Amino acid sequence: MSELSGYKDNSLKLLKDAGIQIGDFIKIYTETTKYSGNLLPRYEYSNVNYIVIKLTNGYNIGIDSKKITNIIKVKSGEKPKFIPPPKPNVKESLPKIAILGTGGTIASRIDYKTGAVNPAFSAEELYSIIPELSAYANINTQLISNIASEQMNPEDWKNIAEKVIEKIEEGNKGIIIGHGTDTMAYSSAALSFALNNCPIPIVLTGAQRSTDRPSSDASLNMISSVIFASQKMLNGVYLAMHSSIEDNIVSIHSGVRVRKNHTSKRDAFQSIGIEPIATVNQDKVTISLELPKNNEKFEPKINFNENVSLLKFHPGFNSEIIDMIVNSGAKGIILEGTGLGHVNSRCNKSIKNAIDKGMFVGMTSQCLQGRIKMTVYSAGRDLLEIGVTPLEDMIPETALVKLMWAYGNYQDDEIKEIMLKNITGEYTKRSKLGR
Amino acid sequence: MSELSGYKDNSLKLLKDAGIQIGDFIKIYTETTKYSGNLLPRYEYSNVNYIVIKLTNGYNIGIDSKKITNIIKVKSGEKPKFIPPPKPNVKESLPKIAILGTGGTIASRIDYKTGAVNPAFSAEELYSIIPELSAYANINTQLISNIASEQMNPEDWKNIAEKVIEKIEEGNKGIIIGHGTDTMAYSSAALSFALNNCPIPIVLTGAQRSTDRPSSDASLNMISSVIFASQKMLNGVYLAMHSSIEDNIVSIHSGVRVRKNHTSKRDAFQSIGIEPIATVNQDKVTISLELPKNNEKFEPKINFNENVSLLKFHPGFNSEIIDMIVNSGAKGIILEGTGLGHVNSRCNKSIKNAIDKGMFVGMTSQCLQGRIKMTVYSAGRDLLEIGVTPLEDMIPETALVKLMWAYGNYQDDEIKEIMLKNITGEYTKRSKLGR
Repeated sequence: MSELSGYKDNSLKLLKDAGIQIGDFIKIYTETTKYSGNLLPRYEYSNVNYIVIKLTNGYNIGIDSKKITNIIKVKSGEKPKFIPPPKPNVKESLPKIAILGTGGTIASRIDYKTGAVNPAFSAEELYSIIPELSAYANINTQLISNIASEQMNPEDWKNIAEKVIEKIEEGNKGIIIGHGTDTMAYSSAALSFALNNCPIPIVLTGAQRSTDRPSSDASLNMISSVIFASQKMLNGVYLAMHSSIEDNIVSIHSGVRVRKNHTSKRDAFQSIGIEPIATVNQDKVTISLELPKNNEKFEPKINFNENVSLLKFHPGFNSEIIDMIVNSGAKGIILEGTGLGHVNSRCNKSIKNAIDKGMFVGMTSQCLQGRIKMTVYSAGRDLLEIGVTPLEDMIPETALVKLMWAYGNYQDDEIKEIMLKNITGEYTKRSKLGR
Repeated sequence: MSELSGYKDNSLKLLKDAGIQIGDFIKIYTETTKYSGNLLPRYEYSNVNYIVIKLTNGYNIGIDSKKITNIIKVKSGEKPKFIPPPKPNVKESLPKIAILGTGGTIASRIDYKTGAVNPAFSAEELYSIIPELSAYANINTQLISNIASEQMNPEDWKNIAEKVIEKIEEGNKGIIIGHGTDTMAYSSAALSFALNNCPIPIVLTGAQRSTDRPSSDASLNMISSVIFASQKMLNGVYLAMHSSIEDNIVSIHSGVRVRKNHTSKRDAFQSIGIEPIATVNQDKVTISLELPKNNEKFEPKINFNENVSLLKFHPGFNSEIIDMIVNSGAKGIILEGTGLGHVNSRCNKSIKNAIDKGMFVGMTSQCLQGRIKMTVYSAGRDLLEIGVTPLEDMIPETALVKLMWAYGNYQDDEIKEIMLKNITGEYTKRSKLGR
């Protein structure tokens, strides 16, 4: 690592002029604020204008170098030390697994004193950081993008799907996708539909705590994902994250029935309406829920039409939002209604207009758990009569992604049939306990 | 009960002409469909045009009498039998509790053979159906509306608040509000803000299973609400519903930190980010979480401005929805972002425009649990710079209701301060475990 790893242009000049090196404790002044902390190295893809320091409260902050009025070195800090261990002996008999990075650093070696992070992504670096991986698989890696997941758009899902297909064709027996957690469950749903019937396990994973914190969950999530994929027990698209706040067990969730249910906890991801498909405890994979297999051919359908909206209903909902979406030429709407699938009847005229114009309007519930049942109350029956399609217990985010996928790959007159068909476990069987 | 209790006009004529009585098994033909089931009586407030039967699958259905082409009696059914028991001895020393009905039947006596329901709402009828109530309180009742809760609008919250204030002035020591479950948590938040510092306990309750099913949760929820209110241990606005799928314990939730998290289960309502405030097990009330008391004066502020929207972000979100809301002259927007409080930067221009026009834009998380923290990632920092207000761990629905309330009762330049002030427990203290 160079003394000012990753800094360029104006940032680099500011730091050099002040005699500052990575790890030093520094003060930065802008017109409005004063910051102090240890200088961190930058990652390859970072915005070059920012200088990043680790504040004493443990968080990192980036400061726009153009706004800096003064920068001084308070005292020298310990430099991050990192000597890569020797490359492990890779056993050629182990399954070939590809790890794709989509954004952020999925594995890293940290100097806890300074908080400095050394991003790693070559297979060698990854082995050196998580040497356990070499016991389970022959890893090959590729950084395919560097997008914080809230910035992902449906076209990014297509790009990831294309890359996955390439990796399958290259003979990989499993594929791990490192992904930001914000929209990881949307992406896992997108890939589940796009790559339905895929012949190998595909596992999305990420980290809730940034890898420069002692509490990071990145390593265990990555190891467990590789273990699950290498055992080739189940094909399909899964999402692997911590089962609990303990750093020991990882849950393997169905890609279409999982949600991020906490902003920061390590076990934020939860299966909705079903158990996780499997757990990985140390190197033991336990399958909890066998999904019905179909033996259909793997025929990827990787297009998405983003001209679709998810609308969450609430008291006082402005039905003009529906009118505006209809007038904008949108293809469909997923409603997140209340309870068993209701909205205020003030919305019915706008919804009817949407359906009369040929749009698909599907109903899900903002309860998130449980099943839509629109025949019970008059509000539901009225919406059924208008032509709203009840989407059973499909979770709202999955319904949105499925509708984008349906309009991306099928004709308009096929959409309703596709939406009601259980493509890849997005619907669960009706509970025997009834409603 | 008359032979055709509740039927009027055309419905009554059709039934009389066919010689049909309540409880009879009948067939109804419309131009498109055939229905068969047992004729049910109607409630006082029901739409007179509908004939209601209990289908063999256990659900009730209403059929528009104008669409009926033929109606025949197949066989006589057992008539619902109901002999009110004698009025219990009411002890004048017990606390005076008002029960307000807002919609639906909150307590009823059922003939399970026919499924016929006898709606009850006078205090005498209520005592006869839930005789336990007389051991805990002197009940007075009033049916103030008959609105399925998905049809409730912010002006209905104001109407309920006005009625509650009347009942407080009449000397009631507690008030129970029977409410449909779809939007009950929105209403409990609305009343929590409108009636902040109220001098008595106010408890919203309802039923997940209709009262004509053996699995109904209505009675236990009502009894437990009355027990909690009659013990006068905690003032404020609460929501009382089953703690589990067992019919034994009821949770008393904070009115501002509760959500309907399942479409149909009896324990659908859950406290978010905190424990329930109390539980009621038989007649034992256990306080689990003492909320900080303030000794401020009870000064109801019962107006709501519904010109506010809750927008749930998703990949592919159409930022023109924000533009349309701004152009419609709306006062504010609550965003339901991803993770720690993010949206795609494609939305930033529209959000900035909203804020530049003086609108309040607040950030909550679609994770629903956990805290907003917008300083960690650049997407959050950019939104902070634009002027988006992070709303900590306030749940999105409560944030929406609070913003409607803030704009209903305060000046535009006070809104941000009000939104960030912890009025009635809508924010929890920061966890000691940090982020």
